[in-house]
Amino acid sequence: MSADGRVEIVALAGLPEVVPGDDLEAMIGDALEATPGVLPFQPGDVLVVTQKVVSKAEGAVVDLRTVTPSPEAVEWATQWDRDPRQIQVVLDEAVRIVRKAKGVLIVETRHGFVCANAGVDASNVGPDSGDAVTLLPRDPDASAARIRAAVRERFGSDVAVVISDSFGRPWRWGIVDVALGVSGLLPLEDLRGRPDADGRVMKTTVRAVADELASAAELALGKTEGRPVALVRGARPPLGEGSNRDLVIPAENDLFR
Amino acid sequence: MSADGRVEIVALAGLPEVVPGDDLEAMIGDALEATPGVLPFQPGDVLVVTQKVVSKAEGAVVDLRTVTPSPEAVEWATQWDRDPRQIQVVLDEAVRIVRKAKGVLIVETRHGFVCANAGVDASNVGPDSGDAVTLLPRDPDASAARIRAAVRERFGSDVAVVISDSFGRPWRWGIVDVALGVSGLLPLEDLRGRPDADGRVMKTTVRAVADELASAAELALGKTEGRPVALVRGARPPLGEGSNRDLVIPAENDLFR
Repeated sequence: MSADGRVEIVALAGLPEVVPGDDLEAMIGDALEATPGVLPFQPGDVLVVTQKVVSKAEGAVVDLRTVTPSPEAVEWATQWDRDPRQIQVVLDEAVRIVRKAKGVLIVETRHGFVCANAGVDASNVGPDSGDAVTLLPRDPDASAARIRAAVRERFGSDVAVVISDSFGRPWRWGIVDVALGVSGLLPLEDLRGRPDADGRVMKTTVRAVADELASAAELALGKTEGRPVALVRGARPPLGEGSNRDLVIPAENDLFR
Repeated sequence: MSADGRVEIVALAGLPEVVPGDDLEAMIGDALEATPGVLPFQPGDVLVVTQKVVSKAEGAVVDLRTVTPSPEAVEWATQWDRDPRQIQVVLDEAVRIVRKAKGVLIVETRHGFVCANAGVDASNVGPDSGDAVTLLPRDPDASAARIRAAVRERFGSDVAVVISDSFGRPWRWGIVDVALGVSGLLPLEDLRGRPDADGRVMKTTVRAVADELASAAELALGKTEGRPVALVRGARPPLGEGSNRDLVIPAENDLFR
């Protein structure tokens, strides 16, 4: 929680176009040095890195020209005016289809995330990528941990890292950024048992701090600016060795399977 | 969208305990004056006001001693160790029960929001409120508009206002703050048809900016600090006469009824 009630979010200087095999950690370090006012790090600082550059650097990219769509993908794509090869990639990424209706394909990914199109995305993939789509990073916690380790190595500071992506939600229009992976913070802050402002014990309050950090970062980054990394200062999330698995509701507690 | 990529969130000085009939607008004005560095307002500033103080000032409070629970409420409360009177209030606030399972009661409110317990809440109600619960504001857009008008009257600036509350989500643990009501901004920013960073037209990107503003504010406010209002500066949301109705997915598009 913020100590003095002030949180600052700074979009880092833009990164060069990221391609598979790039040293994303070095690029983020350069961006930190190129951005006025972010160094030195302060206690509780969080780096939020949007998924797209992580996926591109890690090569989590599929060239649709290599994809042969199944009849199921072709049927759905034809019905809803989509690219059947991209639908096939979505089906390949899914471990379970949660909803398939009205042109929307909501699936569960290997990570346990439930989201539209398994996070497969054709926007902001790159200038020469007419037939490329990105997948979600295979292990976003590991992606976050690599960035955190590189920052520690280069700047001598232990900074928490969140990998973010934009997800829709049931019942509410629009997308908000959430955490795909974390390193160095606990994605949930459990206030159960703590007194509220009136001294009454709170029974059910578990804050999804990592998701709120991702959403806050998105306000500074926007979607079209070519700036994929933000520093969030002052939010002071609970530190520790958390995981995206902490965020996923398991099947036995899931009311919306 | 943030112009220069910097967003600042300032929790305003704490308000006195709010009770029904209080002039919340005047209290917020006083808090603005008591908080260093927030005045004068800047273009695109947003005031985020958490629901609890709005509900209390508006008298959207129920004394549970006046509630006679129905047999349905008693049965559920007994099964899940809840207060049957509070369950009755939830049922009274609901226009539709979306899920009732595993001790969780997820309903649709009059506003069209789908949330746990219809937003009925016993935490942070007040020091002498052992039997009181708050309801959601009847018309959170109107609540936001009143605060906006009072700020304009007192400070001569047109500032957007968001009324926020903490909602859970399917599939992900924890709560995040979302917008219950807005005035002076559009809760959704529709980027469809605009070019992405590579010049490719984005097909499906509609940002739920008001919800991200609410989540960002929560990072500065926390849950136990007694500070219910934050100023968000630099996010520059799309301005205009929006409504919480813009955020609600109508029945015909709802895949999770």
